[in-house]
Amino acid sequence: MATPLTGAFFIGSKRVQSADRFYAVNPETSEKIEPGFSVSSEMDVEQACALANSVFDRYRATSAEERAQLLEAIAENVAALGETAIPRAQSETALPQARLTGELARTCNQLRLFAGELRDGRWQGVRIDPAQPDRTPLPRPDLRLRKIPVGPVAVFGASNFPFAFSVAGGDTAAALAAGCPVVVKAHPAHPGASELVAGAIIEAVKACGLPDGVFSMIAGPSNALGAALVANPHIKAVGFTGSRQGGLALMEIAARRAEPIPVYAEMSSINPVLLLPGALDRRAEALAEAFLNSLTMGVGQFCTNPGLLIAVQGPGLERFIKAAAAGIVHKPAATMLTPGIFANYTSGIARLRDDLHAQAVGAGPEGRGPNCGQAFLFSVSATDFLASPKWAQEVFGPSSVLVHCDNQQQMQAVLEALEGQLTATLQIDDADHALARNLLPILERKAGRILANGWPTGVEVAHAMVHGGPFPATSDGRSTSVGTLSIDRFLRPVCYQDLPSDLLPTVLRS
Amino acid sequence: MATPLTGAFFIGSKRVQSADRFYAVNPETSEKIEPGFSVSSEMDVEQACALANSVFDRYRATSAEERAQLLEAIAENVAALGETAIPRAQSETALPQARLTGELARTCNQLRLFAGELRDGRWQGVRIDPAQPDRTPLPRPDLRLRKIPVGPVAVFGASNFPFAFSVAGGDTAAALAAGCPVVVKAHPAHPGASELVAGAIIEAVKACGLPDGVFSMIAGPSNALGAALVANPHIKAVGFTGSRQGGLALMEIAARRAEPIPVYAEMSSINPVLLLPGALDRRAEALAEAFLNSLTMGVGQFCTNPGLLIAVQGPGLERFIKAAAAGIVHKPAATMLTPGIFANYTSGIARLRDDLHAQAVGAGPEGRGPNCGQAFLFSVSATDFLASPKWAQEVFGPSSVLVHCDNQQQMQAVLEALEGQLTATLQIDDADHALARNLLPILERKAGRILANGWPTGVEVAHAMVHGGPFPATSDGRSTSVGTLSIDRFLRPVCYQDLPSDLLPTVLRS
Repeated sequence: MATPLTGAFFIGSKRVQSADRFYAVNPETSEKIEPGFSVSSEMDVEQACALANSVFDRYRATSAEERAQLLEAIAENVAALGETAIPRAQSETALPQARLTGELARTCNQLRLFAGELRDGRWQGVRIDPAQPDRTPLPRPDLRLRKIPVGPVAVFGASNFPFAFSVAGGDTAAALAAGCPVVVKAHPAHPGASELVAGAIIEAVKACGLPDGVFSMIAGPSNALGAALVANPHIKAVGFTGSRQGGLALMEIAARRAEPIPVYAEMSSINPVLLLPGALDRRAEALAEAFLNSLTMGVGQFCTNPGLLIAVQGPGLERFIKAAAAGIVHKPAATMLTPGIFANYTSGIARLRDDLHAQAVGAGPEGRGPNCGQAFLFSVSATDFLASPKWAQEVFGPSSVLVHCDNQQQMQAVLEALEGQLTATLQIDDADHALARNLLPILERKAGRILANGWPTGVEVAHAMVHGGPFPATSDGRSTSVGTLSIDRFLRPVCYQDLPSDLLPTVLRS
Repeated sequence: MATPLTGAFFIGSKRVQSADRFYAVNPETSEKIEPGFSVSSEMDVEQACALANSVFDRYRATSAEERAQLLEAIAENVAALGETAIPRAQSETALPQARLTGELARTCNQLRLFAGELRDGRWQGVRIDPAQPDRTPLPRPDLRLRKIPVGPVAVFGASNFPFAFSVAGGDTAAALAAGCPVVVKAHPAHPGASELVAGAIIEAVKACGLPDGVFSMIAGPSNALGAALVANPHIKAVGFTGSRQGGLALMEIAARRAEPIPVYAEMSSINPVLLLPGALDRRAEALAEAFLNSLTMGVGQFCTNPGLLIAVQGPGLERFIKAAAAGIVHKPAATMLTPGIFANYTSGIARLRDDLHAQAVGAGPEGRGPNCGQAFLFSVSATDFLASPKWAQEVFGPSSVLVHCDNQQQMQAVLEALEGQLTATLQIDDADHALARNLLPILERKAGRILANGWPTGVEVAHAMVHGGPFPATSDGRSTSVGTLSIDRFLRPVCYQDLPSDLLPTVLRS
């Protein structure tokens, strides 16, 4: 069914090969995987961006229905890749088959949800103020507003979601829905899965009769390639999910351009979970079990991994600690996404242990193969936590820190000291509602999503989802990267004043 | 009625005086006006911002109705200032009484429009995805989204609108409506008008029983003061209208903060007006007259002043040029807002004449007093225009450049060469619709507002208005600074997942 891997990248529908090659690495063996993949040059970046720009007006002139059909065609093609793309992604990421199967389905559902959103039309933000020719002292003109796409968008594939936050992921779906051509920079850790998905998009663009250049994908292992993409004058917005260092670098490049552009970087979040006294009293053991499942799911490699627990001292917390310490030994280590991510995880754990002298509540069994992430739960007093911002640094992987507070005031102080977060979670019982009500204003200021009695891992693709939050969770807390509201990041408003009806965009005609 | 001027600035309701003083200058005489005004220190900035932050949660917890009443109370108090504030603003800005009277009324209407918007509720962007407990393989949680205010906002008063874009102007109205406390930096050119309006706001805050600190106003002549305000960690967004240099400086400060924040800077726009052949044929003389009125209104000191005309050579254009040359001599020079703005205007004209050897179509009579801006219309071939970006630099004042093109292709090339604009205007007749249809996609990419058969000066305060546009017209083309949509610049979305009903914000309860 699907095309076998060729090692090419895509400038529009053109498969481009280069002599310079890079390889995926199987994290379970640390060995490279065939075939080699072509490395895009800065000239390739320019060609892809110029091509995207050249088709921008034609692509944005398509109807919402035409773009909805494109998204559905992409979804169909991507769904059909399962038998080749899932095993390839498995060897490139060490993620289990069941997880990748679910992620592929989620990616297709996301594309279909945007197709529905396009047909719904609310995304255009139409506003009409009819003329008031008889108003005094001056007549009011006819004013009509709609949102239009910003221009070609650069999307960076993320290492931890080879499908859902990569080539045909949320940013690509939102940008294509908005009417923006997309140039993807494939994540170098899964070039094979990326090539397969890019091929599926290219085929859909062709089948829908849309202009060649609506989608391109460049690839290569160096940061310079992504820097060139963000610096390219044809690019008008950037979507990125990755490290804080990487996101900050792209923000700086974008801010220094002759024409600065928005960067939507999702970067760093430790996702505090507050264990309130009533909930601990009623179900400390169940909370410990659910926490460990969330902590170790996907080897802790979710942006929404619960990296911080906050609770007030007491018998309930003691029971939770005991249960967590007993449970964590049954959470086996597992292979992380890349040797680099494993190395960062190891040094994050070393920072907690050696620099901060963190006390371990418990640890999972050590792993056997290479790149195996071992689960850890540390604890620290609120006083010590507040004394050093290092405690709140993200350690990407299955590690969490429990902050024990003397009282509710200290709990509030710990929350106030946190940077922006993707999520904040309340574990509450009926008896906790009064305290929760006091904490909510702080959580609202700190996070993009507030959960009660759930766990932050697992981000529903829906209309009301916010996968975003204040800096440094993201570079732009006014936006979300998951859910239909994310289309808004690639739109801007235009007002039409007194335009004759036949020159107005169709959606604005009376 | 109104409080006489005290020369104070405001940290919340506290009138603060300093030994260090600065003075407004009457641009008609270049002489300073009494009284002296207190210069805020960086410590005053910190105090105002910390106070704003300390009342943020209390202020944003108010109902939309309470904030609507605040805006209406401000409008009432500002309207009552007319007899003192208008003459004072007249002496500080040299703007005519009728204009200032209209501007004050517009400022009050703007506040009232936001009161209506608050009651309407659409600004909250509510989205609800109800739980699907029976969904397989996993149940869907209950997801509810609303927008909340970003935090304390810094607003910079603009020199060219002492009321409508200053202390109680659009950004202040939008931020207060959103639930954000505001710290205004008064424009040093009109400290008297600023103190009067600030006093009116403070009285309204008090009368509405809202927390002291919802509004503060600092003042002083140095750029360092504004820099300190933007750098202050309590500030979460910035509204600015002014020069490109000033806006870029604030953008850089905001981007370099430990926590970068959005800056909404309205900076530089030459507002191209396209004179299409059919319109020129039918009404070249009327167009010339209307153009000159728009060009010289307010001594050309509008962000939307028509600084660029674009037309194809032909008899219609010749008639337009002849009429414009004849008409401009009847447009008297008038006093500009400040000696600094006059000096910049003079050097802008010198750049056109001396550096670019611009050909003058015509000029208004020279002025007599100090700081008198003389009207100019220059012309240049499209070929020369395209050869140097200097031709497209904004000259703030009553000066415009007419670009004459050999054909429609050249007209398109001139448009494509332009930077982002607040507005783009089509002067068209029925015969021009086909050409206009070809130009519209370019205009949409370049501007925030597209007008047909009107003039860009005059920005209606309405729901469908966009006073914004791609860089460098503004720093953030996703936003508007005029109209109710501007509330969105001070909001961000938050998702509530599975929260018990009594903990949900009222607007999200079923």
